Amino acid sequence: MSKSQSTVFDTIRSRFHGILEEYMTSLQPPSATLYDAMKYATLNYGKSLRPLLIYTTGELLNCETKKLDAPALAVELLHCYSLVHDDLPAMDDDDLRRGQPSCHKAYDEATAILVGDALQSLSIQVLMDAPELNPEQKVNMAKTLLKASGLKGMVAGQALDLAYLNEKETDEKTLHTIHQLKTGKLFTACVLMACHATSLPKTDPLYQALYTYATELGVAFQIQDDYLDEYGETNRLGKLKGSDTKQGKLTYTHFYDQSSLENLIETRYQKAIDAIMPYAEKATSLLTLTQALQNRDH
Amino acid sequence: MSKSQSTVFDTIRSRFHGILEEYMTSLQPPSATLYDAMKYATLNYGKSLRPLLIYTTGELLNCETKKLDAPALAVELLHCYSLVHDDLPAMDDDDLRRGQPSCHKAYDEATAILVGDALQSLSIQVLMDAPELNPEQKVNMAKTLLKASGLKGMVAGQALDLAYLNEKETDEKTLHTIHQLKTGKLFTACVLMACHATSLPKTDPLYQALYTYATELGVAFQIQDDYLDEYGETNRLGKLKGSDTKQGKLTYTHFYDQSSLENLIETRYQKAIDAIMPYAEKATSLLTLTQALQNRDH
Repeated sequence: MSKSQSTVFDTIRSRFHGILEEYMTSLQPPSATLYDAMKYATLNYGKSLRPLLIYTTGELLNCETKKLDAPALAVELLHCYSLVHDDLPAMDDDDLRRGQPSCHKAYDEATAILVGDALQSLSIQVLMDAPELNPEQKVNMAKTLLKASGLKGMVAGQALDLAYLNEKETDEKTLHTIHQLKTGKLFTACVLMACHATSLPKTDPLYQALYTYATELGVAFQIQDDYLDEYGETNRLGKLKGSDTKQGKLTYTHFYDQSSLENLIETRYQKAIDAIMPYAEKATSLLTLTQALQNRDH
Repeated sequence: MSKSQSTVFDTIRSRFHGILEEYMTSLQPPSATLYDAMKYATLNYGKSLRPLLIYTTGELLNCETKKLDAPALAVELLHCYSLVHDDLPAMDDDDLRRGQPSCHKAYDEATAILVGDALQSLSIQVLMDAPELNPEQKVNMAKTLLKASGLKGMVAGQALDLAYLNEKETDEKTLHTIHQLKTGKLFTACVLMACHATSLPKTDPLYQALYTYATELGVAFQIQDDYLDEYGETNRLGKLKGSDTKQGKLTYTHFYDQSSLENLIETRYQKAIDAIMPYAEKATSLLTLTQALQNRDH
Protein backbone atom coordinates (compact mmCIF):
# COMPACT_ATOMS: atom_id res chain seq x y z
CA MET A 1 0.00 0.00 0.00
CA SER A 2 1.41 3.38 -0.97
CA LYS A 3 1.64 6.19 1.53
CA SER A 4 -1.19 8.14 -0.07
CA GLN A 5 -3.50 5.11 0.09
CA SER A 6 -2.68 4.58 3.73
CA THR A 7 -3.48 8.26 4.32
CA VAL A 8 -6.92 7.77 2.79
CA PHE A 9 -7.74 5.07 5.34
CA ASP A 10 -6.24 7.14 8.15
CA THR A 11 -8.56 9.97 7.14
CA ILE A 12 -11.65 7.74 7.10
CA ARG A 13 -10.63 6.19 10.39
CA SER A 14 -9.89 9.42 12.15
CA ARG A 15 -13.17 10.93 10.97
CA PHE A 16 -14.94 7.84 12.30
CA HIS A 17 -13.13 7.99 15.63
CA GLY A 18 -14.26 11.59 15.95
CA ILE A 19 -17.87 10.54 15.36
CA LEU A 20 -17.58 7.67 17.83
CA GLU A 21 -16.08 9.90 20.48
CA GLU A 22 -18.71 12.57 19.94
CA TYR A 23 -21.45 9.97 20.15
CA MET A 24 -20.10 8.34 23.29
CA THR A 25 -19.57 11.65 25.08
CA SER A 26 -23.10 12.80 24.22
CA LEU A 27 -24.87 10.01 26.07
CA GLN A 28 -24.99 11.05 29.75
CA PRO A 29 -26.52 7.91 31.27
CA PRO A 30 -27.48 7.81 34.97
CA SER A 31 -24.66 5.52 36.16
CA ALA A 32 -21.27 7.27 36.10
CA THR A 33 -19.27 4.07 36.56
CA LEU A 34 -21.10 2.26 33.78
CA TYR A 35 -20.60 5.27 31.52
CA ASP A 36 -16.87 5.54 32.27
CA ALA A 37 -16.42 1.84 31.62
CA MET A 38 -18.40 2.04 28.36
CA LYS A 39 -16.14 4.84 27.14
CA TYR A 40 -13.08 2.88 28.30
CA ALA A 41 -14.23 -0.11 26.24
CA THR A 42 -15.01 1.85 23.07
CA LEU A 43 -12.58 4.76 22.86
CA ASN A 44 -9.40 2.70 23.11
CA TYR A 45 -9.34 2.54 19.34
CA GLY A 46 -8.35 -0.55 17.44
CA LYS A 47 -8.04 -0.85 13.69
CA SER A 48 -11.75 -0.10 13.23
CA LEU A 49 -11.66 -2.51 10.34
CA ARG A 50 -15.40 -3.12 10.27
CA PRO A 51 -16.30 0.56 9.93
CA LEU A 52 -13.60 0.89 7.23
CA LEU A 53 -15.24 -1.96 5.37
CA ILE A 54 -18.59 -0.17 5.53
CA TYR A 55 -17.21 3.14 4.30
CA THR A 56 -15.18 1.64 1.44
CA THR A 57 -18.12 -0.54 0.32
CA GLY A 58 -20.30 2.56 0.52
CA GLU A 59 -17.88 4.40 -1.76
CA LEU A 60 -18.22 1.66 -4.37
CA LEU A 61 -21.99 2.07 -4.09
CA ASN A 62 -21.83 5.86 -4.42
CA CYS A 63 -23.44 6.12 -1.03
CA GLU A 64 -23.44 9.39 0.92
CA THR A 65 -20.93 9.04 3.75
CA LYS A 66 -23.43 10.34 6.31
CA LYS A 67 -25.72 7.38 5.69
CA LEU A 68 -22.87 5.04 6.63
CA ASP A 69 -22.10 6.60 10.00
CA ALA A 70 -24.90 4.83 11.88
CA PRO A 71 -24.05 1.32 10.63
CA ALA A 72 -20.33 2.03 11.20
CA LEU A 73 -21.04 3.08 14.80
CA ALA A 74 -23.40 0.14 15.26
CA VAL A 75 -20.92 -2.51 14.18
CA GLU A 76 -18.07 -0.96 16.15
CA LEU A 77 -20.17 -0.81 19.35
CA LEU A 78 -21.26 -4.37 18.78
CA HIS A 79 -17.68 -5.49 18.20
CA CYS A 80 -16.61 -3.73 21.42
CA TYR A 81 -19.40 -5.45 23.40
CA SER A 82 -18.20 -8.83 22.13
CA LEU A 83 -14.60 -8.10 23.11
CA VAL A 84 -15.62 -7.06 26.65
CA HIS A 85 -17.67 -10.22 27.18
CA ASP A 86 -15.13 -12.51 25.48
CA ASP A 87 -12.39 -11.25 27.80
CA LEU A 88 -14.34 -12.16 30.97
CA PRO A 89 -12.81 -14.76 33.31
CA ALA A 90 -15.61 -17.24 32.58
CA MET A 91 -14.96 -16.86 28.84
CA ASP A 92 -11.47 -16.39 27.31
CA ASP A 93 -10.10 -14.89 30.55
CA ASP A 94 -7.93 -12.24 28.93
CA ASP A 95 -6.39 -9.59 31.16
CA LEU A 96 -5.24 -7.42 28.27
CA ARG A 97 -7.06 -5.86 25.35
CA ARG A 98 -5.25 -3.62 22.88
CA GLY A 99 -2.35 -3.46 25.31
CA GLN A 100 -4.50 -2.11 28.16
CA PRO A 101 -6.17 -3.91 31.07
CA SER A 102 -9.40 -5.44 29.77
CA CYS A 103 -12.65 -3.92 31.00
CA HIS A 104 -13.20 -6.33 33.90
CA LYS A 105 -9.61 -5.70 35.09
CA ALA A 106 -9.87 -1.91 34.83
CA TYR A 107 -13.32 -2.03 36.52
CA ASP A 108 -14.85 -5.26 37.76
CA GLU A 109 -16.69 -8.26 36.37
CA ALA A 110 -20.19 -6.99 37.09
CA THR A 111 -19.44 -3.69 35.37
CA ALA A 112 -17.91 -5.48 32.37
CA ILE A 113 -21.00 -7.68 31.98
CA LEU A 114 -23.22 -4.60 32.11
CA VAL A 115 -20.96 -2.66 29.71
CA GLY A 116 -21.34 -5.43 27.15
CA ASP A 117 -25.09 -5.53 27.66
CA ALA A 118 -25.41 -1.77 27.30
CA LEU A 119 -23.17 -1.64 24.22
CA GLN A 120 -25.17 -4.34 22.48
CA SER A 121 -28.35 -2.41 23.18
CA LEU A 122 -26.73 0.85 22.03
CA SER A 123 -25.51 -0.65 18.78
CA ILE A 124 -29.07 -1.22 17.59
CA GLN A 125 -30.30 2.01 19.14
CA VAL A 126 -27.85 4.01 17.03
CA LEU A 127 -29.40 2.45 13.92
CA MET A 128 -32.96 3.10 15.08
CA ASP A 129 -32.17 6.75 15.89
CA ALA A 130 -30.25 7.54 12.66
CA PRO A 131 -31.89 10.60 11.06
CA GLU A 132 -30.34 9.81 7.65
CA LEU A 133 -32.00 6.41 7.29
CA ASN A 134 -35.60 5.59 6.48
CA PRO A 135 -37.50 3.01 8.56
CA GLU A 136 -37.02 0.27 5.98
CA GLN A 137 -33.26 0.81 5.87
CA LYS A 138 -33.12 0.78 9.67
CA VAL A 139 -35.02 -2.50 9.84
CA ASN A 140 -32.88 -4.12 7.13
CA MET A 141 -29.65 -3.05 8.81
CA ALA A 142 -30.82 -4.18 12.25
CA LYS A 143 -31.91 -7.55 10.84
CA THR A 144 -28.53 -8.01 9.18
CA LEU A 145 -26.56 -7.02 12.24
CA LEU A 146 -28.66 -9.06 14.67
CA LYS A 147 -28.53 -12.17 12.53
CA ALA A 148 -24.75 -11.89 12.24
CA SER A 149 -24.23 -11.34 15.94
CA GLY A 150 -26.84 -13.38 17.77
CA LEU A 151 -27.61 -17.02 18.36
CA LYS A 152 -26.96 -17.92 14.73
CA GLY A 153 -23.85 -15.78 14.44
CA MET A 154 -21.20 -14.37 16.72
CA VAL A 155 -22.64 -15.59 20.02
CA ALA A 156 -23.01 -19.12 18.63
CA GLY A 157 -19.42 -18.94 17.41
CA GLN A 158 -18.20 -18.02 20.87
CA ALA A 159 -20.26 -20.84 22.42
CA LEU A 160 -18.80 -23.39 19.96
CA ASP A 161 -15.32 -21.93 20.46
CA LEU A 162 -15.53 -22.56 24.20
CA ALA A 163 -16.86 -26.06 23.60
CA TYR A 164 -14.59 -27.25 20.79
CA LEU A 165 -11.41 -25.28 20.29
CA ASN A 166 -9.67 -26.84 23.26
CA GLU A 167 -10.53 -30.33 22.03
CA LYS A 168 -7.73 -31.95 20.06
CA GLU A 169 -10.13 -34.02 17.95
CA THR A 170 -12.02 -31.03 16.56
CA ASP A 171 -11.94 -31.21 12.77
CA GLU A 172 -11.21 -28.48 10.25
CA LYS A 173 -14.86 -28.15 9.28
CA THR A 174 -15.82 -27.28 12.84
CA LEU A 175 -12.95 -24.80 13.09
CA HIS A 176 -14.15 -23.21 9.86
CA THR A 177 -17.75 -23.00 11.14
CA ILE A 178 -16.62 -21.38 14.36
CA HIS A 179 -14.61 -18.72 12.55
CA GLN A 180 -17.42 -18.08 10.12
CA LEU A 181 -19.83 -17.52 13.00
CA LYS A 182 -17.43 -15.55 15.20
CA THR A 183 -15.88 -13.30 12.57
CA GLY A 184 -17.06 -13.98 9.04
CA LYS A 185 -20.73 -13.15 9.48
CA LEU A 186 -19.98 -9.74 10.95
CA PHE A 187 -17.70 -8.89 8.00
CA THR A 188 -20.51 -9.84 5.66
CA ALA A 189 -22.94 -7.78 7.72
CA CYS A 190 -20.76 -4.68 7.22
CA VAL A 191 -20.85 -5.02 3.47
CA LEU A 192 -24.59 -5.76 3.43
CA MET A 193 -25.39 -2.79 5.68
CA ALA A 194 -23.67 -0.56 3.14
CA CYS A 195 -25.94 -2.14 0.50
CA HIS A 196 -28.99 -1.40 2.66
CA ALA A 197 -27.87 2.21 3.00
CA THR A 198 -28.40 2.59 -0.75
CA SER A 199 -31.45 0.27 -0.74
CA LEU A 200 -29.66 -2.02 -3.21
CA PRO A 201 -31.95 -5.03 -3.77
CA LYS A 202 -30.76 -8.50 -2.85
CA THR A 203 -31.32 -9.62 -6.41
CA ASP A 204 -28.86 -7.08 -7.85
CA PRO A 205 -25.68 -8.80 -9.18
CA LEU A 206 -23.61 -6.22 -7.28
CA TYR A 207 -25.26 -7.25 -4.01
CA GLN A 208 -24.41 -10.86 -4.78
CA ALA A 209 -20.84 -9.95 -5.76
CA LEU A 210 -20.34 -8.03 -2.53
CA TYR A 211 -21.81 -10.90 -0.52
CA THR A 212 -19.28 -13.32 -2.06
CA TYR A 213 -16.48 -10.81 -1.58
CA ALA A 214 -17.27 -10.39 2.12
CA THR A 215 -17.59 -14.11 2.76
CA GLU A 216 -14.21 -14.87 1.19
CA LEU A 217 -12.60 -11.91 2.92
CA GLY A 218 -13.84 -13.11 6.30
CA VAL A 219 -12.39 -16.58 5.80
CA ALA A 220 -9.07 -15.21 4.50
CA PHE A 221 -8.80 -12.79 7.40
CA GLN A 222 -9.37 -15.44 10.02
CA ILE A 223 -6.94 -18.00 8.58
CA GLN A 224 -4.43 -15.16 8.36
CA ASP A 225 -5.04 -14.30 12.02
CA ASP A 226 -4.06 -17.84 12.96
CA TYR A 227 -1.07 -17.65 10.61
CA LEU A 228 0.18 -14.37 12.07
CA ASP A 229 -0.32 -15.61 15.60
CA GLU A 230 2.11 -18.46 14.82
CA TYR A 231 4.50 -17.07 12.21
CA GLY A 232 4.00 -13.29 12.22
CA GLU A 233 7.11 -11.18 12.66
CA THR A 234 5.30 -8.49 14.53
CA ASN A 235 3.35 -9.63 17.54
CA ARG A 236 -0.22 -8.53 17.79
CA LEU A 237 -0.60 -5.70 20.24
CA GLY A 238 -1.12 -6.96 23.74
CA LYS A 239 -0.92 -10.62 22.73
CA LEU A 240 2.14 -12.85 22.79
CA LYS A 241 3.28 -14.61 19.62
CA GLY A 242 1.88 -18.12 19.35
CA SER A 243 -0.40 -17.39 22.29
CA ASP A 244 -3.39 -19.21 20.81
CA THR A 245 -1.54 -22.47 20.18
CA LYS A 246 0.31 -22.16 23.50
CA GLN A 247 -3.07 -21.89 25.26
CA GLY A 248 -3.95 -25.19 23.63
CA LYS A 249 -6.38 -23.51 21.25
CA LEU A 250 -6.91 -25.23 17.97
CA THR A 251 -5.96 -23.04 14.98
CA TYR A 252 -5.44 -23.55 11.25
CA THR A 253 -1.75 -24.21 11.97
CA HIS A 254 -2.88 -27.58 13.31
CA PHE A 255 -4.08 -28.65 9.86
CA TYR A 256 -1.59 -26.97 7.49
CA ASP A 257 2.13 -26.24 7.36
CA GLN A 258 3.34 -22.69 6.84
CA SER A 259 3.52 -22.68 3.04
CA SER A 260 0.15 -24.43 2.59
CA LEU A 261 -1.38 -21.83 4.87
CA GLU A 262 0.18 -19.05 2.81
CA ASN A 263 -1.35 -20.56 -0.33
CA LEU A 264 -4.72 -20.91 1.36
CA ILE A 265 -4.74 -17.28 2.46
CA GLU A 266 -3.63 -16.13 -1.00
CA THR A 267 -6.40 -18.17 -2.66
CA ARG A 268 -9.12 -16.81 -0.42
CA TYR A 269 -8.04 -13.20 -0.86
CA GLN A 270 -7.95 -13.77 -4.61
CA LYS A 271 -11.49 -15.15 -4.55
CA ALA A 272 -12.61 -12.06 -2.66
CA ILE A 273 -10.93 -9.78 -5.19
CA ASP A 274 -12.29 -11.76 -8.17
CA ALA A 275 -15.82 -11.29 -6.90
CA ILE A 276 -15.63 -7.51 -7.17
CA MET A 277 -13.32 -7.24 -10.19
CA PRO A 278 -16.24 -6.58 -12.57
CA TYR A 279 -16.75 -3.36 -10.56
CA ALA A 280 -13.02 -2.60 -10.27
CA GLU A 281 -13.34 0.93 -11.60
CA LYS A 282 -15.56 2.01 -8.72
CA ALA A 283 -13.96 -0.36 -6.22
CA THR A 284 -10.54 1.30 -5.88
CA SER A 285 -10.82 1.87 -2.14
CA LEU A 286 -12.28 -1.53 -1.41
CA LEU A 287 -9.58 -3.26 -3.46
CA THR A 288 -6.89 -1.22 -1.75
CA LEU A 289 -8.30 -2.08 1.65
CA THR A 290 -8.33 -5.75 0.69
CA GLN A 291 -4.70 -5.55 -0.37
CA ALA A 292 -3.78 -3.76 2.82
CA LEU A 293 -5.41 -6.54 4.83
CA GLN A 294 -3.63 -9.19 2.81
CA ASN A 295 -0.28 -7.47 3.42
CA ARG A 296 -0.82 -6.83 7.12
CA ASP A 297 1.73 -8.17 9.55
CA HIS A 298 -0.39 -8.03 12.73
CA MET B 1 -60.53 -10.99 41.21
CA SER B 2 -63.41 -13.30 40.32
CA LYS B 3 -62.76 -16.76 38.94
CA SER B 4 -63.89 -15.79 35.45
CA GLN B 5 -61.50 -12.82 35.37
CA SER B 6 -58.62 -14.98 36.47
CA THR B 7 -59.53 -17.42 33.69
CA VAL B 8 -59.28 -14.62 31.12
CA PHE B 9 -55.69 -13.94 32.14
CA ASP B 10 -54.91 -17.64 32.23
CA THR B 11 -56.17 -17.89 28.67
CA ILE B 12 -54.04 -14.97 27.45
CA ARG B 13 -51.03 -16.32 29.31
CA SER B 14 -51.36 -19.85 28.09
CA ARG B 15 -51.81 -18.66 24.50
CA PHE B 16 -48.66 -16.56 24.92
CA HIS B 17 -46.70 -19.45 26.43
CA GLY B 18 -47.67 -21.52 23.39
CA ILE B 19 -46.36 -18.82 21.07
CA LEU B 20 -43.14 -18.47 23.07
CA GLU B 21 -42.56 -22.21 23.06
CA GLU B 22 -43.27 -22.47 19.36
CA TYR B 23 -40.90 -19.60 18.66
CA MET B 24 -38.09 -20.97 20.82
CA THR B 25 -38.37 -24.47 19.39
CA SER B 26 -38.30 -23.12 15.81
CA LEU B 27 -34.86 -21.53 16.09
CA GLN B 28 -32.32 -24.33 15.50
CA PRO B 29 -29.10 -22.40 16.14
CA PRO B 30 -25.69 -24.05 15.56
CA SER B 31 -24.72 -24.50 19.21
CA ALA B 32 -26.79 -27.19 20.94
CA THR B 33 -25.69 -26.23 24.45
CA LEU B 34 -26.43 -22.57 23.93
CA TYR B 35 -29.83 -23.47 22.51
CA ASP B 36 -30.71 -25.81 25.38
CA ALA B 37 -29.72 -23.16 27.87
CA MET B 38 -31.72 -20.49 26.06
CA LYS B 39 -34.82 -22.68 26.22
CA TYR B 40 -34.10 -23.44 29.87
CA ALA B 41 -33.98 -19.72 30.62
CA THR B 42 -37.15 -18.82 28.75
CA LEU B 43 -39.55 -21.75 28.99
CA ASN B 44 -39.57 -21.98 32.78
CA TYR B 45 -42.59 -19.71 32.80
CA GLY B 46 -43.07 -16.98 35.33
CA LYS B 47 -46.07 -14.73 35.64
CA SER B 48 -45.44 -13.25 32.18
CA LEU B 49 -46.70 -9.98 33.57
CA ARG B 50 -45.11 -7.81 30.89
CA PRO B 51 -46.75 -9.68 27.99
CA LEU B 52 -50.08 -9.55 29.89
CA LEU B 53 -49.68 -5.79 30.18
CA ILE B 54 -49.15 -5.56 26.42
CA TYR B 55 -52.17 -7.69 25.57
CA THR B 56 -54.54 -5.94 27.99
CA THR B 57 -53.37 -2.50 26.84
CA GLY B 58 -53.84 -3.66 23.27
CA GLU B 59 -57.40 -4.69 24.09
CA LEU B 60 -58.16 -1.17 25.32
CA LEU B 61 -56.76 0.13 22.03
CA ASN B 62 -58.81 -2.29 19.93
CA CYS B 63 -55.58 -3.71 18.58
CA GLU B 64 -55.50 -7.04 16.74
CA THR B 65 -53.97 -9.62 19.08
CA LYS B 66 -51.57 -10.84 16.38
CA LYS B 67 -49.89 -7.44 16.23
CA LEU B 68 -49.09 -7.74 19.93
CA ASP B 69 -47.35 -11.10 19.78
CA ALA B 70 -43.99 -9.74 18.58
CA PRO B 71 -43.70 -7.04 21.29
CA ALA B 72 -44.91 -9.55 23.90
CA LEU B 73 -42.23 -12.03 22.85
CA ALA B 74 -39.64 -9.26 22.67
CA VAL B 75 -40.22 -7.99 26.19
CA GLU B 76 -40.35 -11.48 27.67
CA LEU B 77 -37.06 -12.50 25.99
CA LEU B 78 -35.50 -9.27 27.16
CA HIS B 79 -36.76 -9.84 30.71
CA CYS B 80 -35.35 -13.38 30.66
CA TYR B 81 -31.95 -12.11 29.46
CA SER B 82 -31.87 -9.65 32.35
CA LEU B 83 -32.71 -12.37 34.88
CA VAL B 84 -29.96 -14.68 33.57
CA HIS B 85 -27.33 -11.93 33.78
CA ASP B 86 -28.59 -10.56 37.12
CA ASP B 87 -28.28 -14.02 38.68
CA LEU B 88 -24.58 -14.37 37.73
CA PRO B 89 -22.06 -14.70 40.59
CA ALA B 90 -20.48 -11.32 39.73
CA MET B 91 -23.93 -9.70 39.92
CA ASP B 92 -26.65 -10.71 42.41
CA ASP B 93 -25.22 -14.23 42.76
CA ASP B 94 -28.55 -16.05 42.91
CA ASP B 95 -28.52 -19.84 42.69
CA LEU B 96 -32.26 -20.11 42.24
CA ARG B 97 -34.69 -18.64 39.76
CA ARG B 98 -38.39 -19.53 39.84
CA GLY B 99 -37.55 -22.39 42.18
CA GLN B 100 -35.05 -23.97 39.74
CA PRO B 101 -31.26 -23.69 39.54
CA SER B 102 -30.45 -20.43 37.78
CA CYS B 103 -28.96 -20.66 34.29
CA HIS B 104 -25.30 -20.51 35.37
CA LYS B 105 -25.93 -23.27 37.95
CA ALA B 106 -27.78 -25.53 35.51
CA TYR B 107 -25.10 -24.88 32.84
CA ASP B 108 -22.03 -22.72 33.53
CA GLU B 109 -21.14 -19.06 33.74
CA ALA B 110 -19.86 -18.71 30.19
CA THR B 111 -23.03 -20.26 28.81
CA ALA B 112 -25.20 -18.02 31.00
CA ILE B 113 -23.39 -14.90 29.76
CA LEU B 114 -23.89 -16.02 26.16
CA VAL B 115 -27.53 -16.95 26.79
CA GLY B 116 -28.20 -13.43 28.01
CA ASP B 117 -26.37 -11.94 25.04
CA ALA B 118 -28.27 -14.11 22.58
CA LEU B 119 -31.65 -13.42 24.20
CA GLN B 120 -31.09 -9.68 24.11
CA SER B 121 -30.26 -9.92 20.43
CA LEU B 122 -33.26 -12.17 19.80
CA SER B 123 -35.66 -9.82 21.54
CA ILE B 124 -35.06 -7.11 18.95
CA GLN B 125 -34.85 -9.61 16.12
CA VAL B 126 -38.36 -10.82 16.87
CA LEU B 127 -39.61 -7.26 16.42
CA MET B 128 -37.66 -6.74 13.18
CA ASP B 129 -38.97 -10.02 11.73
CA ALA B 130 -42.64 -9.54 12.70
CA PRO B 131 -44.75 -9.92 9.54
CA GLU B 132 -47.72 -8.11 11.13
CA LEU B 133 -45.86 -4.85 11.76
CA ASN B 134 -44.82 -2.17 9.29
CA PRO B 135 -41.24 -0.80 9.35
CA GLU B 136 -42.26 2.33 11.26
CA GLN B 137 -43.98 0.30 13.97
CA LYS B 138 -40.94 -1.97 14.24
CA VAL B 139 -38.61 1.00 14.62
CA ASN B 140 -40.83 2.69 17.20
CA MET B 141 -41.14 -0.48 19.25
CA ALA B 142 -37.41 -1.20 19.10
CA LYS B 143 -36.60 2.38 20.13
CA THR B 144 -38.97 2.11 23.07
CA LEU B 145 -37.67 -1.26 24.20
CA LEU B 146 -33.98 -0.36 23.77
CA LYS B 147 -34.35 2.93 25.63
CA ALA B 148 -36.09 1.18 28.50
CA SER B 149 -33.53 -1.60 28.74
CA GLY B 150 -30.16 -0.11 27.87
CA LEU B 151 -27.73 2.34 29.40
CA LYS B 152 -30.50 4.77 30.32
CA GLY B 153 -32.84 2.07 31.58
CA MET B 154 -32.62 -1.42 33.00
CA VAL B 155 -28.85 -1.87 32.65
CA ALA B 156 -28.23 1.48 34.36
CA GLY B 157 -30.61 0.42 37.13
CA GLN B 158 -28.66 -2.77 37.70
CA ALA B 159 -25.36 -0.83 37.74
CA LEU B 160 -26.74 1.62 40.33
CA ASP B 161 -28.27 -1.23 42.31
CA LEU B 162 -24.86 -2.90 42.65
CA ALA B 163 -23.28 0.41 43.60
CA TYR B 164 -25.85 1.81 46.03
CA LEU B 165 -28.31 -0.69 47.43
CA ASN B 166 -25.84 -2.16 49.86
CA GLU B 167 -24.94 1.30 51.15
CA LYS B 168 -26.79 2.26 54.31
CA GLU B 169 -26.69 5.98 53.50
CA THR B 170 -28.50 5.63 50.15
CA ASP B 171 -31.53 7.93 50.20
CA GLU B 172 -35.09 7.25 49.11
CA LYS B 173 -34.68 9.27 45.93
CA THR B 174 -31.83 7.04 44.75
CA LEU B 175 -33.81 3.93 45.65
CA HIS B 176 -36.72 5.30 43.64
CA THR B 177 -34.46 6.05 40.64
CA ILE B 178 -32.99 2.56 40.71
CA HIS B 179 -36.41 0.92 40.74
CA GLN B 180 -37.66 3.20 37.99
CA LEU B 181 -34.70 2.23 35.81
CA LYS B 182 -34.70 -1.47 36.68
CA THR B 183 -38.41 -2.14 36.54
CA GLY B 184 -40.52 0.93 35.85
CA LYS B 185 -39.21 1.79 32.41
CA LEU B 186 -39.88 -1.70 31.06
CA PHE B 187 -43.48 -1.57 32.34
CA THR B 188 -43.91 1.71 30.52
CA ALA B 189 -42.30 0.24 27.41
CA CYS B 190 -44.92 -2.54 27.36
CA VAL B 191 -47.77 -0.06 27.35
CA LEU B 192 -46.11 2.16 24.75
CA MET B 193 -45.34 -0.77 22.44
CA ALA B 194 -49.05 -1.58 22.45
CA CYS B 195 -49.65 2.06 21.45
CA HIS B 196 -47.11 1.72 18.61
CA ALA B 197 -48.90 -1.42 17.43
CA THR B 198 -51.92 0.75 16.65
CA SER B 199 -49.74 3.70 15.53
CA LEU B 200 -51.35 5.85 18.23
CA PRO B 201 -49.59 9.24 18.11
CA LYS B 202 -47.69 10.48 21.16
CA THR B 203 -49.87 13.56 21.24
CA ASP B 204 -53.10 11.58 21.70
CA PRO B 205 -54.54 12.06 25.20
CA LEU B 206 -54.95 8.28 25.45
CA TYR B 207 -51.21 7.81 24.83
CA GLN B 208 -50.51 10.30 27.61
CA ALA B 209 -53.00 8.61 29.93
CA LEU B 210 -51.45 5.21 29.34
CA TYR B 211 -48.00 6.63 29.89
CA THR B 212 -49.03 7.99 33.29
CA TYR B 213 -50.82 4.74 34.11
CA ALA B 214 -47.72 2.67 33.36
CA THR B 215 -45.38 4.93 35.29
CA GLU B 216 -47.54 4.80 38.43
CA LEU B 217 -48.10 1.07 38.06
CA GLY B 218 -44.34 0.48 37.87
CA VAL B 219 -43.71 2.42 41.07
CA ALA B 220 -46.58 0.75 42.89
CA PHE B 221 -45.44 -2.69 41.81
CA GLN B 222 -41.89 -2.19 42.97
CA ILE B 223 -42.79 -0.75 46.39
CA GLN B 224 -45.19 -3.66 46.77
CA ASP B 225 -42.39 -6.10 45.90
CA ASP B 226 -40.36 -4.73 48.79
CA TYR B 227 -43.45 -4.85 51.01
CA LEU B 228 -44.24 -8.47 50.17
CA ASP B 229 -40.62 -9.48 50.61
CA GLU B 230 -40.82 -8.22 54.20
CA TYR B 231 -44.46 -8.71 55.24
CA GLY B 232 -45.99 -11.04 52.65
CA GLU B 233 -47.75 -14.14 53.96
CA THR B 234 -46.79 -16.20 50.99
CA ASN B 235 -43.12 -16.30 50.15
CA ARG B 236 -42.13 -15.56 46.62
CA LEU B 237 -41.29 -18.70 44.75
CA GLY B 238 -37.66 -19.63 45.19
CA LYS B 239 -36.91 -16.70 47.44
CA LEU B 240 -36.94 -16.65 51.23
CA LYS B 241 -39.12 -14.16 53.08
CA GLY B 242 -37.22 -10.99 53.97
CA SER B 243 -34.35 -12.15 51.80
CA ASP B 244 -33.60 -8.70 50.41
CA THR B 245 -33.31 -6.99 53.76
CA LYS B 246 -31.46 -9.98 55.23
CA GLN B 247 -28.91 -9.66 52.41
CA GLY B 248 -28.37 -6.09 53.55
CA LYS B 249 -30.19 -4.71 50.51
CA LEU B 250 -31.88 -1.41 50.97
CA THR B 251 -35.65 -1.56 50.35
CA TYR B 252 -38.63 0.72 50.94
CA THR B 253 -39.10 -0.94 54.32
CA HIS B 254 -36.05 1.05 55.45
CA PHE B 255 -37.93 4.33 54.98
CA TYR B 256 -41.53 3.43 55.93
CA ASP B 257 -43.32 1.34 58.51
CA GLN B 258 -45.81 -1.29 57.41
CA SER B 259 -48.95 0.83 57.42
CA SER B 260 -47.27 3.81 55.70
CA LEU B 261 -46.07 1.45 53.01
CA GLU B 262 -49.58 0.07 52.59
CA ASN B 263 -50.87 3.63 52.11
CA LEU B 264 -48.12 4.42 49.65
CA ILE B 265 -48.88 1.34 47.55
CA GLU B 266 -52.61 2.08 47.66
CA THR B 267 -52.03 5.69 46.55
CA ARG B 268 -49.82 4.72 43.62
CA TYR B 269 -52.23 2.06 42.37
CA GLN B 270 -55.03 4.58 42.65
CA LYS B 271 -53.08 7.10 40.58
CA ALA B 272 -52.53 4.44 37.93
CA ILE B 273 -56.24 3.62 37.88
CA ASP B 274 -57.26 7.30 37.84
CA ALA B 275 -55.16 7.87 34.73
CA ILE B 276 -57.17 5.41 32.66
CA MET B 277 -60.60 5.94 34.29
CA PRO B 278 -61.76 8.23 31.44
CA TYR B 279 -61.42 5.13 29.23
CA ALA B 280 -62.88 2.73 31.81
CA GLU B 281 -65.47 1.32 29.44
CA LYS B 282 -62.82 -0.10 27.12
CA ALA B 283 -60.28 -0.71 29.88
CA THR B 284 -62.01 -3.57 31.69
CA SER B 285 -59.14 -6.01 31.27
CA LEU B 286 -56.46 -3.48 32.09
CA LEU B 287 -58.32 -2.38 35.21
CA THR B 288 -58.85 -5.97 36.27
CA LEU B 289 -55.16 -6.73 35.75
CA THR B 290 -54.27 -3.70 37.84
CA GLN B 291 -56.56 -4.88 40.63
CA ALA B 292 -55.11 -8.37 40.43
CA LEU B 293 -51.63 -6.93 40.80
CA GLN B 294 -52.70 -4.78 43.73
CA ASN B 295 -54.20 -7.83 45.45
CA ARG B 296 -51.31 -10.19 44.78
CA ASP B 297 -49.66 -11.88 47.73
CA HIS B 298 -46.37 -12.85 46.02
